[in-house]
Amino acid sequence: MSQGKIVLAYSGGLDTSVSVKWIEEKYGYEVVALGLDIGEGKDLETVRQKALQVGAVNAYMINAKEELAEEYLLPALKANALYEGKYPLSSALSRPLISKFLVDVAEKEGAVAVAHGCTGKGNDQVRFELSIQALNPDLNVVAPVREWGMTRDEQLVYAEEKGIPISVTAENPFSIDANIWGRACEAGVLENPWVEPPEEAFAWTASLQHTPDEPEYVEIEFLEGRPVALNGVAKPLVDLIEELNTKGGKHGVGRIDHVENRLVGIKSREVYENPGALILIGAHKELEFLTHTREMSQFKTMVDQQMAKLIYDGLWFSPLKSSLMAFVEDTQKVVTGTINVKLHKGHATVVGRKSPYSLYNEELATYLKGDMFDHKAAEGFIKLWGLPTKVHAQVHQSKNAVHS
Amino acid sequence: MSQGKIVLAYSGGLDTSVSVKWIEEKYGYEVVALGLDIGEGKDLETVRQKALQVGAVNAYMINAKEELAEEYLLPALKANALYEGKYPLSSALSRPLISKFLVDVAEKEGAVAVAHGCTGKGNDQVRFELSIQALNPDLNVVAPVREWGMTRDEQLVYAEEKGIPISVTAENPFSIDANIWGRACEAGVLENPWVEPPEEAFAWTASLQHTPDEPEYVEIEFLEGRPVALNGVAKPLVDLIEELNTKGGKHGVGRIDHVENRLVGIKSREVYENPGALILIGAHKELEFLTHTREMSQFKTMVDQQMAKLIYDGLWFSPLKSSLMAFVEDTQKVVTGTINVKLHKGHATVVGRKSPYSLYNEELATYLKGDMFDHKAAEGFIKLWGLPTKVHAQVHQSKNAVHS
Amino acid sequence: MSQGKIVLAYSGGLDTSVSVKWIEEKYGYEVVALGLDIGEGKDLETVRQKALQVGAVNAYMINAKEELAEEYLLPALKANALYEGKYPLSSALSRPLISKFLVDVAEKEGAVAVAHGCTGKGNDQVRFELSIQALNPDLNVVAPVREWGMTRDEQLVYAEEKGIPISVTAENPFSIDANIWGRACEAGVLENPWVEPPEEAFAWTASLQHTPDEPEYVEIEFLEGRPVALNGVAKPLVDLIEELNTKGGKHGVGRIDHVENRLVGIKSREVYENPGALILIGAHKELEFLTHTREMSQFKTMVDQQMAKLIYDGLWFSPLKSSLMAFVEDTQKVVTGTINVKLHKGHATVVGRKSPYSLYNEELATYLKGDMFDHKAAEGFIKLWGLPTKVHAQVHQSKNAVHS
Amino acid sequence: MSQGKIVLAYSGGLDTSVSVKWIEEKYGYEVVALGLDIGEGKDLETVRQKALQVGAVNAYMINAKEELAEEYLLPALKANALYEGKYPLSSALSRPLISKFLVDVAEKEGAVAVAHGCTGKGNDQVRFELSIQALNPDLNVVAPVREWGMTRDEQLVYAEEKGIPISVTAENPFSIDANIWGRACEAGVLENPWVEPPEEAFAWTASLQHTPDEPEYVEIEFLEGRPVALNGVAKPLVDLIEELNTKGGKHGVGRIDHVENRLVGIKSREVYENPGALILIGAHKELEFLTHTREMSQFKTMVDQQMAKLIYDGLWFSPLKSSLMAFVEDTQKVVTGTINVKLHKGHATVVGRKSPYSLYNEELATYLKGDMFDHKAAEGFIKLWGLPTKVHAQVHQSKNAVHS
Repeated sequence: MSQGKIVLAYSGGLDTSVSVKWIEEKYGYEVVALGLDIGEGKDLETVRQKALQVGAVNAYMINAKEELAEEYLLPALKANALYEGKYPLSSALSRPLISKFLVDVAEKEGAVAVAHGCTGKGNDQVRFELSIQALNPDLNVVAPVREWGMTRDEQLVYAEEKGIPISVTAENPFSIDANIWGRACEAGVLENPWVEPPEEAFAWTASLQHTPDEPEYVEIEFLEGRPVALNGVAKPLVDLIEELNTKGGKHGVGRIDHVENRLVGIKSREVYENPGALILIGAHKELEFLTHTREMSQFKTMVDQQMAKLIYDGLWFSPLKSSLMAFVEDTQKVVTGTINVKLHKGHATVVGRKSPYSLYNEELATYLKGDMFDHKAAEGFIKLWGLPTKVHAQVHQSKNAVHS
Repeated sequence: MSQGKIVLAYSGGLDTSVSVKWIEEKYGYEVVALGLDIGEGKDLETVRQKALQVGAVNAYMINAKEELAEEYLLPALKANALYEGKYPLSSALSRPLISKFLVDVAEKEGAVAVAHGCTGKGNDQVRFELSIQALNPDLNVVAPVREWGMTRDEQLVYAEEKGIPISVTAENPFSIDANIWGRACEAGVLENPWVEPPEEAFAWTASLQHTPDEPEYVEIEFLEGRPVALNGVAKPLVDLIEELNTKGGKHGVGRIDHVENRLVGIKSREVYENPGALILIGAHKELEFLTHTREMSQFKTMVDQQMAKLIYDGLWFSPLKSSLMAFVEDTQKVVTGTINVKLHKGHATVVGRKSPYSLYNEELATYLKGDMFDHKAAEGFIKLWGLPTKVHAQVHQSKNAVHS
Repeated sequence: MSQGKIVLAYSGGLDTSVSVKWIEEKYGYEVVALGLDIGEGKDLETVRQKALQVGAVNAYMINAKEELAEEYLLPALKANALYEGKYPLSSALSRPLISKFLVDVAEKEGAVAVAHGCTGKGNDQVRFELSIQALNPDLNVVAPVREWGMTRDEQLVYAEEKGIPISVTAENPFSIDANIWGRACEAGVLENPWVEPPEEAFAWTASLQHTPDEPEYVEIEFLEGRPVALNGVAKPLVDLIEELNTKGGKHGVGRIDHVENRLVGIKSREVYENPGALILIGAHKELEFLTHTREMSQFKTMVDQQMAKLIYDGLWFSPLKSSLMAFVEDTQKVVTGTINVKLHKGHATVVGRKSPYSLYNEELATYLKGDMFDHKAAEGFIKLWGLPTKVHAQVHQSKNAVHS
Repeated sequence: MSQGKIVLAYSGGLDTSVSVKWIEEKYGYEVVALGLDIGEGKDLETVRQKALQVGAVNAYMINAKEELAEEYLLPALKANALYEGKYPLSSALSRPLISKFLVDVAEKEGAVAVAHGCTGKGNDQVRFELSIQALNPDLNVVAPVREWGMTRDEQLVYAEEKGIPISVTAENPFSIDANIWGRACEAGVLENPWVEPPEEAFAWTASLQHTPDEPEYVEIEFLEGRPVALNGVAKPLVDLIEELNTKGGKHGVGRIDHVENRLVGIKSREVYENPGALILIGAHKELEFLTHTREMSQFKTMVDQQMAKLIYDGLWFSPLKSSLMAFVEDTQKVVTGTINVKLHKGHATVVGRKSPYSLYNEELATYLKGDMFDHKAAEGFIKLWGLPTKVHAQVHQSKNAVHS
């Protein structure tokens, strides 16, 4: 007898195909498959057919790229979110989105549970489960891959027994995850952090020897922190990101090699490709350097780091994220202007920046005539700025004199 | 009648040559010149001759590269010190060193004052004066260039009147400062932050089109945070840095273009070249990622940022620096190992890392057989890690239900 | 001939009365006096008469208590703002308010300058001038007391010469500043930090031996971070604060003795009385402990400290304050509930707290039957939470074994 | 057949007495009991007898007060460690100490496991297990109380069956933990955070109505952060703490009522009594205010908060703690001097402070003759300190003018 419905995040791959059957057998749930297009380039209609073929009672296929870009990537960009200063959180940002769709579909279908295909040692299981709990604490969560403990070979045997079609393409030696914010690659030879990532680990970015010898310039226009145009042409956010992925990839921009601290307590070696994300974050930061005061720059750095950590740690749907973003959004009112980025040989170098709200003041900064800066003010400033250090030196020198 | 002696930081250039005479005339001090070689490539004997020629009563010429490297650069490297995440503080780190020599010579010569050649709008005046106050609060400090307010043309007239020899080399359109940790370039066309830095702004690094097509690998060995060998060959620190400057420069590594927040309240546009510094900081950070726990990584990031700010802000000889470095030194006990860096087309990419203290544990991280990670533990972890968020969700959903 | 008008923050005391004449003589400005009632208990009509009598061409007298409470104190309360963890910033919060009125009146009167009565060694001059610059960077600022360098005796002579009436009341041995958020007292015997503050330093709070033996309870109700009622009776904010000042003062609550770090680089010894402020901040914090998640509590502590520092440092009208308050306001959505405070012998002890948004969950916390907490989850949590430390221990023990 | 030995942290109470038998039956381990005197006032010889009586094969009884004070409390005091700004971490600090003795005895006895008596919902299990893992990752850890799931009544039945003597004293309605740094009390009526803690919850501190009407002064002398004398009499650390517990308790000092965020994700309501700890931390902080520069004060506050969090979270034996303490120790070089504390009606008010390293400079701070402060310097300081805000105001006002 059916235990009710469960909504499964379904990719069309072996793991989640096996999961459909396994959940049905082990839990007695009827499986509703949910497939999302977030830019990894799969055909949703094919995924739907496969879901139904392997036993799903229903299948939802949704193009979620715009929602991903608007609700998840844009806030992360405004916060210049880079985990440990390196990783733009591309996979991490998709997990709350997928969770939200799982919960939405579960509520629509009257399901009692949802399921994800994560193992027990990654960060993604945490991100899924915390997001789901935050959105609907009454739903059960099932993690078949974490529970069953099958090796790949055992999965293949199981698939054959249950009549689950197995794709015959050569197996990728790496574990891959992708969406429009980037591509993550792990496992295989990458598990040895002394080994240089081989070219096969990369799919979105050209290796330097295959990049053009001529640089390419892209002017990115921002309006209150949001990138709105490339080279003077207004673009929807998804198109703009995808175009920068293409341009950046062509010039070899966006490769990251990181030994990172996972939330679950281990270190893992990851290779990422994030051309669009890195170009945009780099440009956005430079516009902030131009338009934010010193005090703002310093404190926002801490908020940005906290946002990155929070996204990595699965706390997207937490009250702290809401409050951090209230800070960040307020800071973006002045982040309007144009950044000129030069793409060349793996670099996305910011070579020019301008803004109606620029706080760079040539009349104050210049060493030429027209200098408006009050040089005499410096003496008073230095006296008071240095006073704590000076008093400390005086006290301790007289003490030393006494003591020695 | 003499008002006593003053020790002047003397470079041999127009500003400080004019200062010798001007201080003598205005203050009645006898000027003792102090010239330092910190890697900007000047001939100390020539500087000495010029100092005496323009009126110095005595001249000290000191090769201070080793002291710079050991006492200033190495601590900064251990703290991965990058101001605003970008600038390795090359000029900033030399100011306390020069101040220390000024004070040492002043005490040796029985001088009552010291002098530096900074203007009133830069950071360096602050760094000099705070350092001098901290080391000997009884010394007067004179800043002739800040005080006199002469334009360059007026200086030339003054020099001619006083018989100060003027070098006939074409004037550099930029203002330059350099030592073995890097080269800073500002002013001229760089004052417009929308203008791409022209090739003339760079001297240490090849432009990408002139860099080799083949990558070059450098294995850097660290012992407790200190780089000790390149490609298996032990090197003194100064040699090691200079060799990386050369290698990195050849491959176009180390260019920085930054609109930075000065301590004196303005923004300025700076172009830096720091090949050795950036290669070493990048390699050092990666070794820390491998050998530091997650909690350490997160907190050390804050300490590192504070060290960078403190160096920038002129507080090198403050008690806070001593305490921050006590933290940093303690963290370096495990930062021993080898980093493989690939120099290519402006990139210094870390492609391999290994350490006897590596916390990367392949048996925990692997997705293959031999996985020692307890997948079941994740369930318990997620429950408690997510509990605050879940309770929040439960409370607020029941509230919303009641209120709506 | 008149140089135009200047608006002077006028208190009716000797300093600002002398300033009216001195500004007129030295600068040739016509002085417009501005007197504000912010709760220090002076009679505005008397102040107005005196202003006109000593030579002001016009006088504005404004009751600004409500604006102080709503626009300055309430945000500070929401941020639990305590400088160095001790001082509720009562004087500091009034400076931007007074600056705003100075600028408003200056714009209304077509004045070209404003003036404040601060000396050159306090924080208040910084707060005034930064606020004025931020609000209207075109106004000149004059600081007569900082400029003239008169001793009190010289002021008295000057006053007599110019026919300025001198109040005959015995001179207070301390320097006092007050508004509804508290009273500050400095100078005199307090300048020796080894001396216990004498009873004469206090005016708002009873000494412990004169406080009631019986405690008094006050239930403070908050709505989204704003205190709205006392003991069940709704109150306007000004009344609520003043009532708590009275009640708290009666029970000896609110005395602070602090050696603080001034922005201008010195340490000073200050004695404060802030009964209402401390009661409210204490109650507000406890309500936040009940309603905020752990992650929120930890990060908000940093934001709160930054807000306190920023207020102290005179940056009220800076963009950072706007963004920090956007964070803080977002956090207050859940800070609704009731706090029971016991006033007794100088203590304002929170003895009870309740909220519809309380995250304290008795079913999870209880040690009795009905415990809903999953004890088994702890094992998994501990495993992963402690994993970085454990791996570190394993690596270093095996290393030590090898090395020893 | 014996599975080897296990060392159990043994208190003599019901839980751990039952544990002896239960571990033996369930795991087949021979139990070695470890009892520690850390100041909770139990008789070790009685505990030893009981341990052997209930079946321990061996029993170690150790007076660990001095080690607790020197190795755990003193570092915490130097870091002013207060979790969430309120709780001096008295219980939290004893857990790593007990763990260390467990591991030491286990290694001495050749035991294969250790055991603690914590439940599954508290912080202490985490602190024990992380400490044990860090000290000897090869030892198994058993947590009988967390595992067995017996209610108190079931324990009593089990005890009777196994012949375990049950003490007939009336059961304390609260759960108590104590050592010389303080006493913690939870559960019972305290589980309702709206209820005022009843007098029975307190044991160390007098209620205000029973405290002396006359204040008592204590002069505490510190040497490099360590309290070394009371009222001029040198004392060993343990004696000094215990004397302050007594004195403070008599005057009602040290009660804390806190709804705190546990590491395991829940909030709990705790009542603490920490007279000595709070007197010492308060005095120590004041001496730091006197002897630390502003920059130091600000950054040390963050380090202190991190230390408190780390102690609470069980990371005492982590590398981060070592590095944080290296920072803290360096800051203590100047924390030498005397603090005068007035104990009265529940207050421990610092009323005087002096130090040979005092940075409070009366000549700079005074408003009287002899003022050495350069008032003119303030103008220059204000100009540059406020420059970022001023430029921001100018840019945005001109923009607003253009846009409106």
